[in-house]
Order: sequence, then structure tokens, then C-alpha cells
Amino acid sequence: MFYSKENLRFLLHEVFHVEDLCKRTYFKEHTIENFDMMIEAADALAVNHLRPILIEMDRTPPHIENGRIKVHPKMRELMKKFGDDGWISMSAPHEYGGQQVPFTILQATAFIMAAANYSTMAYPFLTNGAAHLIETFGSKHLQQTFIPKMYAGEWQGTMALTEPQAGSSLSDIVTTAASTSDGHYLIKGQKVFISCGDHDGCDNIIHLMLARIEGAPAGTKGISLFVVPRMRMDESDNLVFNDVHTAGVFHKMGYHGAPIAHLIMGEQNDCRAYLVGEPHKGLSYMFQMMNEARIGVGLQATSISSAAYYASLEYANVRLQGRMLSDKNPLNPQIPIIEHADVKRLLLFQKAIVEGSLALGFQATMYLDQWRTSEGEEKENNFLKLELLTPIAKSYPAEMSILSTSAALQCFGGYGFTKEYLAELFFRETRIHTLHEGTTAIHGMDLLGRKVMMQNGKATMLLMQDVMNDIASAKKHDALIPHANTLTQKLQQLQQVTMHLITVAQKDGVETFLADATLYLEYFGIIAIGWQWLKLGEKAAVEKQSLSKKYTPEFLQSKFHALNYFFEYEMPKTEGLYIRLCSNNNVTMQTKAEEIV
Amino acid sequence: MFYSKENLRFLLHEVFHVEDLCKRTYFKEHTIENFDMMIEAADALAVNHLRPILIEMDRTPPHIENGRIKVHPKMRELMKKFGDDGWISMSAPHEYGGQQVPFTILQATAFIMAAANYSTMAYPFLTNGAAHLIETFGSKHLQQTFIPKMYAGEWQGTMALTEPQAGSSLSDIVTTAASTSDGHYLIKGQKVFISCGDHDGCDNIIHLMLARIEGAPAGTKGISLFVVPRMRMDESDNLVFNDVHTAGVFHKMGYHGAPIAHLIMGEQNDCRAYLVGEPHKGLSYMFQMMNEARIGVGLQATSISSAAYYASLEYANVRLQGRMLSDKNPLNPQIPIIEHADVKRLLLFQKAIVEGSLALGFQATMYLDQWRTSEGEEKENNFLKLELLTPIAKSYPAEMSILSTSAALQCFGGYGFTKEYLAELFFRETRIHTLHEGTTAIHGMDLLGRKVMMQNGKATMLLMQDVMNDIASAKKHDALIPHANTLTQKLQQLQQVTMHLITVAQKDGVETFLADATLYLEYFGIIAIGWQWLKLGEKAAVEKQSLSKKYTPEFLQSKFHALNYFFEYEMPKTEGLYIRLCSNNNVTMQTKAEEIV
Repeated sequence: MFYSKENLRFLLHEVFHVEDLCKRTYFKEHTIENFDMMIEAADALAVNHLRPILIEMDRTPPHIENGRIKVHPKMRELMKKFGDDGWISMSAPHEYGGQQVPFTILQATAFIMAAANYSTMAYPFLTNGAAHLIETFGSKHLQQTFIPKMYAGEWQGTMALTEPQAGSSLSDIVTTAASTSDGHYLIKGQKVFISCGDHDGCDNIIHLMLARIEGAPAGTKGISLFVVPRMRMDESDNLVFNDVHTAGVFHKMGYHGAPIAHLIMGEQNDCRAYLVGEPHKGLSYMFQMMNEARIGVGLQATSISSAAYYASLEYANVRLQGRMLSDKNPLNPQIPIIEHADVKRLLLFQKAIVEGSLALGFQATMYLDQWRTSEGEEKENNFLKLELLTPIAKSYPAEMSILSTSAALQCFGGYGFTKEYLAELFFRETRIHTLHEGTTAIHGMDLLGRKVMMQNGKATMLLMQDVMNDIASAKKHDALIPHANTLTQKLQQLQQVTMHLITVAQKDGVETFLADATLYLEYFGIIAIGWQWLKLGEKAAVEKQSLSKKYTPEFLQSKFHALNYFFEYEMPKTEGLYIRLCSNNNVTMQTKAEEIV
Repeated sequence: MFYSKENLRFLLHEVFHVEDLCKRTYFKEHTIENFDMMIEAADALAVNHLRPILIEMDRTPPHIENGRIKVHPKMRELMKKFGDDGWISMSAPHEYGGQQVPFTILQATAFIMAAANYSTMAYPFLTNGAAHLIETFGSKHLQQTFIPKMYAGEWQGTMALTEPQAGSSLSDIVTTAASTSDGHYLIKGQKVFISCGDHDGCDNIIHLMLARIEGAPAGTKGISLFVVPRMRMDESDNLVFNDVHTAGVFHKMGYHGAPIAHLIMGEQNDCRAYLVGEPHKGLSYMFQMMNEARIGVGLQATSISSAAYYASLEYANVRLQGRMLSDKNPLNPQIPIIEHADVKRLLLFQKAIVEGSLALGFQATMYLDQWRTSEGEEKENNFLKLELLTPIAKSYPAEMSILSTSAALQCFGGYGFTKEYLAELFFRETRIHTLHEGTTAIHGMDLLGRKVMMQNGKATMLLMQDVMNDIASAKKHDALIPHANTLTQKLQQLQQVTMHLITVAQKDGVETFLADATLYLEYFGIIAIGWQWLKLGEKAAVEKQSLSKKYTPEFLQSKFHALNYFFEYEMPKTEGLYIRLCSNNNVTMQTKAEEIV
């Protein structure tokens, strides 16, 4: 077991009511039964095809052979399967051969696959994101040329942003695009850290690439988006090499099933690129893919935390070691380690992180689905809440996955450090998530410097409204009142902190204002997860009262324990952060670089 | 650079005054210059011999060949060097060929070697610990037979405690020792997780092994200590196989330079063992080695944090990315990432952990050296403080090393996840330290359940006395008064928490009392590191005032920044822990095992 199907059902049905999405025109052909079947299909794929090759993939990372990246031989078969069974296209509009599945359901299936084998999931969902970009902003010709092959799993899609000198600082991209009289551009430059940027599991790689048209303004305002295929079609529709050279594959700590490539374009001055949309608007287009990918990263970090949690839970139930502290008789049999308080704590911690993060992820995907399928004020409001929540839904699960998988590993004792169990693999694998799709620091600045401030704090106000509604619902259950009150108080504290920081911005300028943005992100994150847990508790209380018996008593009781855990062990961490965020002792501002030795 | 020699000197000279040890009879042949030379020698060894093979060792982990574990070919040469140059015997008494070097200096040299290449350091220092056990508790015959070869680096020493069913629960050891009429015992059983338990870098392996003499009482009271060589001497002094079979080598996440073995003894009923000391007292003897090893683990975790810190500091100074937030001109050149506030924070965090942990480690080794070389009340008092501090000096650095190496990795951005830099190696390598020599949970229970309670809290009282003395010294410097006051307040809070928990023990019993012992350990640990940082700040202030110019202004200034960092970012974490530790909501006690799903 690497995730809980019961919990996924609970989240989708009881907590987020995905069936409500089916009332919207765009999703009207779907039903909740339909969604459940997709979950079942993802589960079957994960169990039968993805998990069985996890260890083998980890032990045989991608490597370069004759200038191409070779991946696990099973990937070609899987790519075809992803295409044939509709996993790549599921969220696309009918006109592009898709099923118009909500992003929430797409991410739920990706969650299952990533929990089974994170690397394998990267291939189809990157392709989905890339095709979706062409769908939204590309010309009809580009759409017709590329999308069908991508959705069929024959051609891989990528997002090609990062360059050696331009990682967090995207404005420093120097890859150039020279216009030609034939309508296409010629690209010169290099890209690094391109996930699935080259591999032999498909016939072609389609890069959605940021580059600078010659003469474009400096900075982010001069960046354009291009489709850059590894192989392009010649006049007779044969695939010919498009001068996208694979310069290397990164050897990495985990995520061994998927290659990360270093690419060099235009060595023979023959790398053709096709402009997407208008010139110089590339970054804003790319943000569609980036924002979806960011929510995805949060959920995928959660997948790995989930896989590690269930591995450690299983072990804790069977591994015998020690006795109750009150039992001093060494002749008594040893007990399963789950009976020890500290092991329970390690498990409840993981459960609180996994299920809280998963809920927060779906909160974001639901805002996204509602935004995409609404108009006017509803659209605007959902957009604002989504924008605000995205850096949190990306970073909290990513950062906490390091600790959550570490807690799983700890449950295994010395065995956790060995390759006899999967805990060490999950611990290695998840470490990428605070780095790709924007480091945590970038998201901290995005949250505090941009999202909290936009439209005079309207996004925060709207989000708080939703939180307050959930608090009101929770208060109908006596047992939840203390937690509801704690959350109310935390919201007030959050407002205080935000106001304090705005004063700092006005008084001391932007550097000091954002110096601890990462801590603000963490602080906001804990409160956001507290919100989700209160909601999970409320829905569990409703289910407990109802006579439906859709969930086992243990399942529901488990929710109350994890809620209690979160408010007793995690929520108090806001106290230290509150003190720090309100302090006027600007440690990092006072510290000169040369005084760090 | 993988550690700071200047900082090591500062700690040994200014903070802990190791030269005072030379006034003691046992150390009287030493001088501070002498100690400095040993540091220089360790540095040369580390730079010239250990660090150069770090990556190669990581890429070629130990493996089994013909029933033996093969390690890196360089290890045989290194073992000889460790022996010839006195690294294994340095702390031993003159009569055993040692140099009577303080444990503090031994650990300082081990720290340097471990920072260069953690695995290589395990071989000599395990041998030192094992030989030291024989020295203290073994017969003259055992001493003469084994110690010279071990100190010469020809024979490896190990500690062989763990069995498949007896990890944290040592009382469940079932390896048996049958007495014979020839004076030796015959061992039957198996041991797992034996570091350096077999390898081809030396001629023999000498296990200091726990086993149960047939008919011995159950539990820890029936455990005896034996010397069990892999090869024993026959009548003509030839080495013959002693029926210690290598059943396997553990494949692990890091620490690849050293093998961890699975051993089976007595398959041919011919595994001879030699009793150390009296029967049934083995565990108390073994605690000598275990306690030293625990302090060592804390310091070695710190070594790896140190190596990661300096790697990330170096990178942060040269890697260009982005601009100051107030600089909106993309045509301006990019700046070194160390100029970004969040990177400074990640570096100051690491510095605070590394130097605070190192200081705490030396605090413990100084208590140990003072205990060993004193009499009466002084001996007793140092022993109590050492006992109290050991679980903290082991666990805080071990737990924080996970976060500290993770912060180092984060400084590298996407490159941190790759094998192009060493950050990922350090992150993998250090993960063992919360597991071996007792998991963090074990140390939490040791601290709260045993150490804090012994002699009615006398150890805590004595330690607090030392802290209060350091607070008084710090208060002589105006700039340190706020931190000194904070620490005073934290000590009071710690007392409150301890009193509260003692009430819980009386009211609700031992299970509830110790349910959050791990959190208590963390809480105590933060305050203990705060103590060390206040002391470091005080000594830096003294140096700044003096005209000696022994340290650069940047070095001293750096101490004030890290002190400030610790009290602003780390110390506030005690607030959340305080709330939790004083709460009467017994989350893990209320949660039944079957209700964690």
C-alpha cells in the first residue's frame, strides 16, 4: 500500500465534493462514478505497471549512449500505454481528443502514480502540461502538428526554461531566437535541468522553450515562448534532426527513473523554433504550465511522503521490539513498535503531513477548476485564491516531505538507512521538490511580495472568508470547538504578522520586508494545513454522525487523532515563527557576506 | 575547506582552555603546542589522504567477494598509517603504547578526519574504542594478545551488540556463550549492523561482543562481554579461522566507505570467545565504549554538517544569480547568491548548528577528561554532568545535521540534487546518525527518564550552575545582555517543564511521562546550544577587546552574527515545544495502534 484509496475517496467525495464540478458545462459529461473509475484505473496502472519497476529504475539510472539518453526499457511501453489509455490527454478539451476531466481528478490520478513510482509519472504529466500550453496559446498549425502525437505518448513534452546562468533568475535567459523569412526562428543556446529533455522511450521530444528574440528588451519583458522539437518534420513529413543536441544527463540523488538533460541548441545553426503566441509574452504564457506544475509538485512531494508513510506504518505494525515501559519482565514477548509512543508520534506526524498536504493540494486544484469554468466575479475570486495558495501548496508539502520521509526512515531504525527497505529511496527521491519549479525562497517572495500584496490584499481576504466558513461549520461539533478557536486566533495572528511586515516594507524597504519571506511562507503554510485538518475533522464528524457507514470507524477515528496531533504538535510551531517574524532584529540584513566565515 | 581550523583553535584555546588539562598528572607531558601539532597532523592526513578518496569510496561501496567484505583498496594502506602514526592509540595510557592524549583532542582529530571523509574515520576510532574496553576491563592476557595489534592498525576492533531481534531492545540479545573447560567460551548466534565487522583492509577483526552465558538471567542482567576474534591464534601463534562467518554486507544510503556487516558465529561450533571482566556485567562495561561513541557520533554528525556548510559557503560566494530586490535593471550584472537574505539565512543556520554542536561536543569531552582525571566530588560532579549531556550531545547534532546538510544542499539550487557537487553525498551520509548508537527516541528516554531524574536531579543542578556561570560572564558585555537574559528565562522555563513532567510521572505513570521525551530532548538541546552560543559570543567579545589579534575581525564578527541568528531563529522554537510539553492533551497515549491508518 502506498496511498489510501479510502482517504482519497473521502477527500474527493466528502471534503471537496468534486461531483459539484459536474454541474458545470465544461465537465457536464462526467459523474462522480466516472471519476471513481478513473481512480480505479490509475490504481491498477500504478499497482501493476509502475510500482513493480521502482527499485529497478532506482538501481539503473538513465545514462548517455551515443549522444542519446537511455532510460529504463519499460518506458517505451509505458509511454504508449499512457497515450493509448488517455492519461496524457484526459484533461484536454474534446476538440483535442481529450475527456475534459477536471484538473483535480487529473492530479488525483497523478498522485496515485507518483506514490507508486514518482519518476514514471513525470513523463506523461510533463507532456500533458506542454501540450496544454500549445492548446491554449499556439496557432492551429502548431496544435495540429504537435498535440496529437503528444497526447498519443509518441512524443514527449518538456518545459525548457533554466539555463546555466539563469535558474531562479529567469530574466537572465540568453538563449536567442533569430527570425527567418520562412516564418520559423533559429535558436542558439543551452538549457539545463530539463526533465525528460531527451530519452529513448518515445520518438521525439517537444520542448516548450523560453528564448529571447534578437533585439528583444532585456529582462523578463523580452522573453518569448517557442516550440522546439528535437526532430522536425521535413517537406515529406519525415522526421529530421533539429539540431537539439544532448550535451549530458545529470547524475542525481534520486528520481532515477526520469532523465534530466542538458541540451545545446543550434550548434549547426539549424535549430528551428516556432513562436507560440505573441513575441515577448513567453513568460506569462509559461506561467500557465508553471503554476499547474507547482501545484503538481506539492502533490507529488505528498505522494512520496504517502508512500513512505504507508511503508513505515506497515513495518511498525509487524516489527517487534521492546516492551511497554511499565513492563519490566524480559521474559514477556516483544511488542510491535507501533505500540511505542514515539513511533506513534512519528506516524501521526507523517499522517498529518500527508493528508493535510493532499487536502491543501486539492483545495488549490478545486480553485483552479472553478476558475477555469466560471465567469465574472466568481472567476476572478477563484483566480485570486488560487494565486495566493499556489506557493503554499507547492512549498509546504515539498519542505515537509523531507521531514516526513525522514520520519518514515526513522521508524525503520537501522534498517531505514539500508536498501533493504524503500524508506531511504523515498528520502532521496523527494529532496528535489524544494528545488524544482522554483526554490522555496522564490515561493516565499512570491507569496509575501506579490500574492499577499496584490489588489490590496484581496486574495488573502477571500481566502480567509473560506477559512472562516469552515471554522463556522466545525463549531457545530463540540469536540472541534477548541481547535476551531485556535485556528481563529491563528488567523488573527497571521493578520498581525502581515500588517507588521507591511509596515516594515514601508519603513525599511523591500529587502528587509522580504528577508524572512521563507519563514512567512512556513508560517502561513502551517496555518493553511491547520485549516485543512479542521475541515477534515469536521467532515469526519459528519460521517461519524451519519448512518451511511461509508467509512470504517478506525478511518474516522484516525482523522480525529491526526487533527489532534496537528493542533498539539505542529500548530504550536507558529509561536516561534510569530516571535521571529515580528522581531525588529534584522539578522540577515546586518550580516555582511564577508562576515559569514 | 571542510572545517575551520581557526574555529577549532578558538574552541580549544579560548572557549575550553584545553591547556588546563595539561596541569593534570595524567596529561602532564602535554602542552597546548603539542595539541596544536596533533591538529595540524590530522589536517594533513585529512587533506592529503582522506578527502581525495571520498567520491571514489562513495561510488564503489563495499561488497562481498568469496565470503569476505572488500572495501576500497586504499584502506589497507590507511589502516597501517592510522596505526603507525599513532591515531588509534593516541588516547591510551603509556603502558599500552599510547600517548595519554585527552579525549577532547582525540575527538578534535576525529572531527577533522570525519569532515574530510566520514567513513575512513570509523575504522581507527572503532578500533580505539574496542581496545580501550579491553584495556579497562580485560585480563592482562587479553590485553597483551589483542591491544598491540589493534593499536598498530593490523587488527580492526568493533562493537558487536545488535541482533536481528535486538536493536533498541538490547535486553533481547540471544547470542549464547557456552563455557568450556579450556577457559574460553563457545559462541553461537548472529549480529547485524556491525560497522567494520569484516573487511580486507586489515589482517583480523576483533569483536567486542555482547552475549548471554548459558543459564544467565533474562534481560540486561544476564549479558556478558566477550572478545571474539575473527581469526584466533593457535598453539603455534598462527591465525586460524574462528568460525565468525560474514553473512552479508548492508547496502546503504551513504557511509559507503565503511562496511556494515551481518555476522554469524558458531556455525561449526568452533567460535571461541574470551570473557571480559565478570560474567553478566557486559552491558555496564560496554557502556564505556557506547558513551564515548555517542559523544563521537554527535561530533561526527557535526563533521558532516561542517563539510556541507563550507561547500555551500564556497558555492554561495561564487555562484552568480539574480540581483538585489531593489535593483530592477536586468542589464546590471548578477550578484553572488550569498548577497540574498535567504541564502545568508541558510548559511547562518548551518554555521549556528555546526559551531554550536561542536562546542557542545567539546563541553561533553571536557567533562569526560575532567571526570577521568579527578577524584572525589570533582569526579562525581563531572560524571553526572557528562551523563546528563551525553544524550543531548549525541542527538541534537545528529538530528540537526539532517536539516543542516539539507540547507547546504538547498544553497546549490537544482545543482544540489545532482552529483556534480558534494552536498547530496553529505545529506545521504549524515542520515545514519539519528539511528546508530541509539535512536533519538532512546536518547530522549535516557535523558528524561534516567539522567534528569538521577540523584534527585543533581546532574541538572550541576549543569545549570555551569550555565549560570557562563551567563554571568556574558553579562559583562553590554551587547550580550539581551541574549544572557533570554537564556536565563529559558532555563527557568526548562525547570518549569521538567517539574510539570515529574508531576505527570507521578499522576499518570511512566508511559505518559515519557511519551514526548523526544521533544523534551529537542527542547533541552536548543537551550544547551543557546548556552554554547552565548559562551562563544562572550569569548569572541573578550578576543575583540584584547589586543592579541589572534583572530580576524571577520571571524569574531561572524560569531556575533551566528549568536544573534541562533537567539532570533532557533531559540524561539522552544516556545512551541514549551506549549506542547506542558499540554495535558496526551495525543499518542489516546491513539490506539489500530486507529493509525
